[in-house]
Amino acid sequence: MTNRQIVLAARPTGFPKESDFRLVETPIPEPKDGEFRVRNSFVSVDPYMRGRMNDVKSYSPPFQIDALIESGAVGYVEVSNNQKFPAGSAVAGMFGWQEYAISNGKGVTPVDPLIAPISTAVGVLGMPGMTAYFGLLEICNPKPGETVVVSGAAGAVGSLVGQIAKIKGCRVIGIAGEDDKISYITGELGFDGAFNYKTEQNYVARLSELCPNGVDVYFDNVGGTITDAVFALLNTKARIAVCGQISQYNAEKPETGPRLFWKLIVKQAKAEGFLVFEFADRFREARPVMAQWIKEGKLKYREDIMEGIENAPKAFIGMLKGANTGKMLVKVA
Amino acid sequence: MTNRQIVLAARPTGFPKESDFRLVETPIPEPKDGEFRVRNSFVSVDPYMRGRMNDVKSYSPPFQIDALIESGAVGYVEVSNNQKFPAGSAVAGMFGWQEYAISNGKGVTPVDPLIAPISTAVGVLGMPGMTAYFGLLEICNPKPGETVVVSGAAGAVGSLVGQIAKIKGCRVIGIAGEDDKISYITGELGFDGAFNYKTEQNYVARLSELCPNGVDVYFDNVGGTITDAVFALLNTKARIAVCGQISQYNAEKPETGPRLFWKLIVKQAKAEGFLVFEFADRFREARPVMAQWIKEGKLKYREDIMEGIENAPKAFIGMLKGANTGKMLVKVA
Repeated sequence: MTNRQIVLAARPTGFPKESDFRLVETPIPEPKDGEFRVRNSFVSVDPYMRGRMNDVKSYSPPFQIDALIESGAVGYVEVSNNQKFPAGSAVAGMFGWQEYAISNGKGVTPVDPLIAPISTAVGVLGMPGMTAYFGLLEICNPKPGETVVVSGAAGAVGSLVGQIAKIKGCRVIGIAGEDDKISYITGELGFDGAFNYKTEQNYVARLSELCPNGVDVYFDNVGGTITDAVFALLNTKARIAVCGQISQYNAEKPETGPRLFWKLIVKQAKAEGFLVFEFADRFREARPVMAQWIKEGKLKYREDIMEGIENAPKAFIGMLKGANTGKMLVKVA
Repeated sequence: MTNRQIVLAARPTGFPKESDFRLVETPIPEPKDGEFRVRNSFVSVDPYMRGRMNDVKSYSPPFQIDALIESGAVGYVEVSNNQKFPAGSAVAGMFGWQEYAISNGKGVTPVDPLIAPISTAVGVLGMPGMTAYFGLLEICNPKPGETVVVSGAAGAVGSLVGQIAKIKGCRVIGIAGEDDKISYITGELGFDGAFNYKTEQNYVARLSELCPNGVDVYFDNVGGTITDAVFALLNTKARIAVCGQISQYNAEKPETGPRLFWKLIVKQAKAEGFLVFEFADRFREARPVMAQWIKEGKLKYREDIMEGIENAPKAFIGMLKGANTGKMLVKVA
């Protein structure tokens, strides 16, 4: 028995390729004093990880060549020398793209499998869920009757943002890149409208139809030309949460676009970037609220699950290309 | 005797030309019941007025062809049928580019000539002063020791922003377009550093030298490539007040530039556009504070005065080109 891990083989240029990653097998690690070993059940693939593959200083350090790809994950404690995380308990943390991880408990969250399937600890009740919750409610402060536009609307974060906005009484319009996703968010998730940016020719015209009262809140996961179009519809005192810019992450050269700041003045609007970690001390307050909404059927989530740690690079690349609906996960066999 | 007025002759394409304006002479108007007549002493030329020359719906309606150019102005009541504004009193309001104006008092502010010269009512104690005060303090919330960068730093607003930031204990760096302006803001106004963007080759390198601890607050009057450069230096939780984008106002085609929103995420930064009018009910609180700073010598201002209402277009065009240091004004002969 070995620990199968995915390491970074080469820094991707543009869109990552599977050959930028490599599977390695190492001995299953043993926990020291104060440590415990986790057997990962699910590892996460998230858009922000693309940034860490570049050799650029940012809010988290770049991944190192030949080193494990760090990522969120959830699993069960197998062997423990740490009383706070006993064997058999479920835990979530930055366990990485591997089958087994050693942890001293730092940054690890206990997971209650009775509240929801443990996979949700890296999805709706984990980082993407907290991103949607705090990004929408704290950065955008949506009010009943306002129009909220979400890009990346069928993804792990966007699909939740739209539903939370509905819970708060807003009119919600989503933008996504597949007709199936459009049906999903307007059907199952109850968005008021949506369009497929890959087949729509004129984003501004379409948005104007869907947002007859303009746009009060824009939750931006995507950036690029979609954001340019939403800017044309902003209302006075609009709030823009800049959560992700996935359209830009794989650009080999920085993309240019129209300058948008003039619009911020004219509309007295605010564009605010955020990282979910700034709300970390309030996750405890948000999780029960989200769990309750799930229980009441007000908040739905979907998981797109690929099997086998060896498929983590494929899942990651697929997610960057928008192959997933809802949260993209890798189930460790 | 007639009332000499400047009207819009043609909508400017790109940079305005003097031929886009026309001097007309009309009878001196007589006030009706509840009205009064003002003889303008100074009329104002301000960057935002360029936007009103385009036939585009914005926060203020476009100027009409052959109609008076509306602008801020300050003068004395000559004839009054309104008890609140007696003959002989000084008043500021949107009296326009003309020698005589009729008003019913709406939007008119009494001016006390004993506090400061009345020209300040359209400058340091008027709209530009309030813009600097509320834009910096309310939008940016600068803290002692933080680094504040101001573009358009020798202008009516920028020169005040920098000084208010100094009063609040910040390190202040200015960007302007003439060596004389650089000397003025670093010498007389006490900025900690500045550079001339017209002669500097590498803005980012220069800013790095001047801002060894990065940029916490950016007060943007200018936009364009200067803003691009400041974005490279933003610190975590930076605040950007988007006040003006004068570099873009005369563009015949919308300019493109690098997409900046990714930086907002990485730095958890906020870019907020504002119009000074949103703080109108607090001008009364700010004016005495500013007047006190002037009295104490902490807040200096300069006025760039052109004589004769016929020169208002020339003053306006010069201001758009950065000919002025401090507040550009037209003294009505």
